[in-house]
Amino acid sequence: MRTQVCIIGGGPSGLLLSQLLHRQGIDSVVLERKTKDYVLSRIRAGVLESGLVDLMREAGVADRLDAEGYVHDGTVISTGDEEIRVDFRELTGRTVVVYGQTEVTRDLYAAREAAGGAILYEAEDVTIHDADGEAPYVTLRTPAGEVRIDCDFVAGCDGFHGVSRKAIPEEKRREFEKVYPFGWLGILSETPPVHDELIYATSDSGFALCSMRNAHLSRYYVQVPMEDRVENWSDDAFWDELRRRIPAPVAERLVTGPSIEKSIAPLRSFVCEPMRWGRLFLCGDAAHIVPPTGAKGLNTAASDVHYLYHALVRHYRDGDDAGIEGYSAQALLRVWKAERFSWWMTTLLHHFPGQSAFDRRMQQAELAFLRDDRAAQEAMARNYVGLPY
Amino acid sequence: MRTQVCIIGGGPSGLLLSQLLHRQGIDSVVLERKTKDYVLSRIRAGVLESGLVDLMREAGVADRLDAEGYVHDGTVISTGDEEIRVDFRELTGRTVVVYGQTEVTRDLYAAREAAGGAILYEAEDVTIHDADGEAPYVTLRTPAGEVRIDCDFVAGCDGFHGVSRKAIPEEKRREFEKVYPFGWLGILSETPPVHDELIYATSDSGFALCSMRNAHLSRYYVQVPMEDRVENWSDDAFWDELRRRIPAPVAERLVTGPSIEKSIAPLRSFVCEPMRWGRLFLCGDAAHIVPPTGAKGLNTAASDVHYLYHALVRHYRDGDDAGIEGYSAQALLRVWKAERFSWWMTTLLHHFPGQSAFDRRMQQAELAFLRDDRAAQEAMARNYVGLPY
Repeated sequence: MRTQVCIIGGGPSGLLLSQLLHRQGIDSVVLERKTKDYVLSRIRAGVLESGLVDLMREAGVADRLDAEGYVHDGTVISTGDEEIRVDFRELTGRTVVVYGQTEVTRDLYAAREAAGGAILYEAEDVTIHDADGEAPYVTLRTPAGEVRIDCDFVAGCDGFHGVSRKAIPEEKRREFEKVYPFGWLGILSETPPVHDELIYATSDSGFALCSMRNAHLSRYYVQVPMEDRVENWSDDAFWDELRRRIPAPVAERLVTGPSIEKSIAPLRSFVCEPMRWGRLFLCGDAAHIVPPTGAKGLNTAASDVHYLYHALVRHYRDGDDAGIEGYSAQALLRVWKAERFSWWMTTLLHHFPGQSAFDRRMQQAELAFLRDDRAAQEAMARNYVGLPY
Repeated sequence: MRTQVCIIGGGPSGLLLSQLLHRQGIDSVVLERKTKDYVLSRIRAGVLESGLVDLMREAGVADRLDAEGYVHDGTVISTGDEEIRVDFRELTGRTVVVYGQTEVTRDLYAAREAAGGAILYEAEDVTIHDADGEAPYVTLRTPAGEVRIDCDFVAGCDGFHGVSRKAIPEEKRREFEKVYPFGWLGILSETPPVHDELIYATSDSGFALCSMRNAHLSRYYVQVPMEDRVENWSDDAFWDELRRRIPAPVAERLVTGPSIEKSIAPLRSFVCEPMRWGRLFLCGDAAHIVPPTGAKGLNTAASDVHYLYHALVRHYRDGDDAGIEGYSAQALLRVWKAERFSWWMTTLLHHFPGQSAFDRRMQQAELAFLRDDRAAQEAMARNYVGLPY
């Protein structure tokens, strides 16, 4: 078969790109290694920058997001019992929207299916050929048999463990990585969120986050040692530890309940350069990973999609390849800023094994500066709501 | 002899405090371990925040500073060949003044002498007694003999190696320290400065700073390994290394000449808590040290002087001890912010032995964010010109 853009990966980035291109009359095929049900069972964060919300609107898939998403005007950063409110709307004129990544994906599937978009599930042995030539193609195996897809371009939206990044020869790419010496133990609980905005909490015993999916579904996290295991944590132990790390008045109004999901995620920063190799483009986790502090994962994938979408439209509509040639540099400039912000928030709020009393005071002084200085709050808010594309 | 405030240390903090108190009718004696000539031979930086300039004016010693100081509206931060200008005046409405610390001290000595202020030089074996009692006194030995000074309060302005901090019992104070794994090799040269503002330069081979004393006297620094020695550096080798670290167009217009002073200084962050022990107050380097990046040393000493001066005036004039009781907490809040800023600038701009490629990219991304984001520049500028007292 033949298509204009072969998109590897049926997560939110690949689907969003496919849908955006479709509305501009550009044809694509999406390859997904798993089933749709599997993809929709993955639980991920859902704090959307306004840039991503705008892209969803442009893709024509924002009706439910606009109706059901929770607009957050700000967030709370707490240190011990002290709460610092950062008012995004007042500082930047913009906000974020809480809407689960699973819901984003579900809406995109619905739109692709309604439009008759080609999605091949359970695609195995996906291999990218001649990415740096004039006529790339992708081969794969599905339950229905072997497939070859000839295309103009390949979009690698297949995540950190996908094949796309590895299609760039090892000597032509450079990888940057930082692994943080702790993980996040997270639980999902059918309880009302303790606060109507997120609370990023730092304390002498470590970091915690009070987040949410909706008015009845809460998501909480506590920083745990890297080698810790879910089996070590009963629900009661989790709630006790969470209460210790959040301000006392917040802890008092916390409603607890049984966890319906409990897991530990590692924290990692990762970037691959370049993000383009000939006619292959990397998007999202295929090229970069951020620690979850600051919720930049999906949003940074969306900024890649934004750049790639506009580059492809410019190519097909105007015959202008400047966007394609500049994709890697342009995407990376924003990627590195999102990496910096995620690293900064992680470094600011977590307890690091072996950190000195001086290091801890640097965290506290930075929080005091953030509390007292409007410019510091504005710089933080501008990153949180999303730097301009 | 008897005085109201016994000030230990005849550097700029002690003299400024003495002069400010004098103008409010409060009597003090200044004790200096060295001679006046020795104090005036110490070469130190001289970038003055507007708060310090205001204090000098209030002390009646700003005529020469106002006439001869160089007002800097901004500074340049360079990375490789790229120059980022931060416009203090535009961002904050304030500026800094370049005026050598030696000149500040000289003007203060002249004022103290004109007013008949008591300064005891070559004061040895200075010992603080009963600091936490109602009637503290200080004993010392001068070339003229033993002296005992009874006083209401003791101001410890005697620097990091002075006796004042150690007069707080060890179990009652807590010290925080970070030693950076590099030093600054600095030279003074009778050449015109390469630029009319300071240039803080970062490069793949490390940090450099282009600074100045006046239009004919330049001060330049390059980061060197901690164990390096001045003897390893000819003037030519210094100039070559400096040129490698600053933007090429700047290097091209650099005027070099023989060094008239050359030395290596270590970089250290240090804070002692509390800054008050009964009737003893610590000011400046006696309580805290910053690395020189960002020029916060003298300026943070000045903010201590500001708080202590107002606390003492309130005590003597109004019989109100709130300023005295609150001195340590109030001074430390600002000290920790200055420590954070100095640590941040140092961490942002230096090469750290063993730093990863990811760490280097975090520095570059932070510089890109600073270049592109006005709020980030404003937060930096507000620290540089001095946070409000």
